[in-house]
Amino acid sequence: MKLLTGKRDNKVFIGVLDSTETKVLSVNERESMVECIAKGEKFLQEIKEKIQAASEEEYFFLEEVTLLSPVKKPPKNILCVGKNYVDHAIEMGSKDDIPEHLMVFTKAPTTIIGPNEQIDNHLSITKQLDYEGELAIVIGKKGRNIKKEDALDYVFGYTIVNDITARDLQAKHKQFFLGKSLDTSCPMGPVLVHKENLSDPNHLHIETKINGEVRQSSNTKHFIFSVEEMISTISLGMTLEPGDVIATGTPAGVGKGFQPPRFLNPGDQIEITIEGIGTLSNKVSEEI
Amino acid sequence: MKLLTGKRDNKVFIGVLDSTETKVLSVNERESMVECIAKGEKFLQEIKEKIQAASEEEYFFLEEVTLLSPVKKPPKNILCVGKNYVDHAIEMGSKDDIPEHLMVFTKAPTTIIGPNEQIDNHLSITKQLDYEGELAIVIGKKGRNIKKEDALDYVFGYTIVNDITARDLQAKHKQFFLGKSLDTSCPMGPVLVHKENLSDPNHLHIETKINGEVRQSSNTKHFIFSVEEMISTISLGMTLEPGDVIATGTPAGVGKGFQPPRFLNPGDQIEITIEGIGTLSNKVSEEI
Repeated sequence: MKLLTGKRDNKVFIGVLDSTETKVLSVNERESMVECIAKGEKFLQEIKEKIQAASEEEYFFLEEVTLLSPVKKPPKNILCVGKNYVDHAIEMGSKDDIPEHLMVFTKAPTTIIGPNEQIDNHLSITKQLDYEGELAIVIGKKGRNIKKEDALDYVFGYTIVNDITARDLQAKHKQFFLGKSLDTSCPMGPVLVHKENLSDPNHLHIETKINGEVRQSSNTKHFIFSVEEMISTISLGMTLEPGDVIATGTPAGVGKGFQPPRFLNPGDQIEITIEGIGTLSNKVSEEI
Repeated sequence: MKLLTGKRDNKVFIGVLDSTETKVLSVNERESMVECIAKGEKFLQEIKEKIQAASEEEYFFLEEVTLLSPVKKPPKNILCVGKNYVDHAIEMGSKDDIPEHLMVFTKAPTTIIGPNEQIDNHLSITKQLDYEGELAIVIGKKGRNIKKEDALDYVFGYTIVNDITARDLQAKHKQFFLGKSLDTSCPMGPVLVHKENLSDPNHLHIETKINGEVRQSSNTKHFIFSVEEMISTISLGMTLEPGDVIATGTPAGVGKGFQPPRFLNPGDQIEITIEGIGTLSNKVSEEI
């Protein structure tokens, strides 16, 4: 099941894709995705009933819909795991950068934009805007001190985020938050895939293209910390809530990893594809 | 004007203290502090009208009120400035720790508790729970790229936070977020003082006592980065929103700064007093 937050005829709604992935059924027009997820099983039941009751005419074409970020206002800042692929940790410095323990920073919710929305180039603030394609976990129910073996029970589903980073700000301010939190620096989408439709989140191909050129190509099987370990460690003493988003880290191939670095330029098109989810596509604004 | 979020007869309300600071008038029972602040001048006007129209009988004793955190769900994680007093930067390491640029990390909103609420000792997770008394800025209106000279226009008021930190987790996970985000690790209050009632946020005495013993005693005049500089730098490319909370850093005298360190123990009472605001008091839970 692939869910989306969409806009059609100026109305925002939660929709579900049909099996052809070309048509959409609206399943909720009153609540946000976070509110829907917080309803738990009831939300899934409601979707099932809507699908059963719907006639073919109630579906409309995906083309008629403006996709928005599947989750717009998570209860917390986006939780981001740093350096969770060995090859990326090394490209950011050396083998000394491979973390022994989970590293977590956050991005402000004001960074979130939807598929196809423009990423501000922030030319006056940064000369080193970079991309990071990542699998994102969306939490489905409240929990604390979650055991690894129970972790997937707390997942609602998965989406894609682009953890856009101003490398110069990231280095200048030491803690990552400011360099990670420029407005529009968290494109998310295109859809939120329910966990039952992704057999193994720790085994998904992930690829990032810039203007059609493959820059990142890896698989979540190379995670240093698995989805279960991330949820377990992050929830140690801290309550996770429905709608919380965990960005799971990026593989090698970011702009900073090249010699010389290949940072983003105005007008660049970024496409991140993850197996079983889809492609998140965003362009860097051209305005000077 | 000192505002509070309180609970009385099982009802949550926004109140204002009278000039004796012993009596409270309820000014809003429908909206949260963040929603009230977001109304801008209208909120201040409503308070003024409530005060003018109120008879003496409408005020009730502060003693009858359970104080809650003045802001419960800020739009973003709590924004925290690290090492903003020279003497604290040095006690955390050496002169090399004095930051050249603003350092910002965040605490999850799930950390927020009110005055007199218990801080969980998290004994199974940390052996190094520490206190940090701090002035907190509450943002009053939306803004981005705010100039230093305009910064105070974007402030609603000020309160106190205790930036409770698990030093072992902070060190283990490199980025500060996890060590700063254990549940109950952000006591806040007791009141939110409107900016017009604090003449200079960059010149306020701040003091922290543990079980009655003074551990931190300083003045915000020792800030490395002023309130205006913090707001200006944080808002560079990132939109600040009404109700956002900026914790401004802590002076010397934290537990980790002593030789040997003096971390918090179950049952410890922490009192943080800031000139013109009041005293925020919380106890560490005794349960094993």
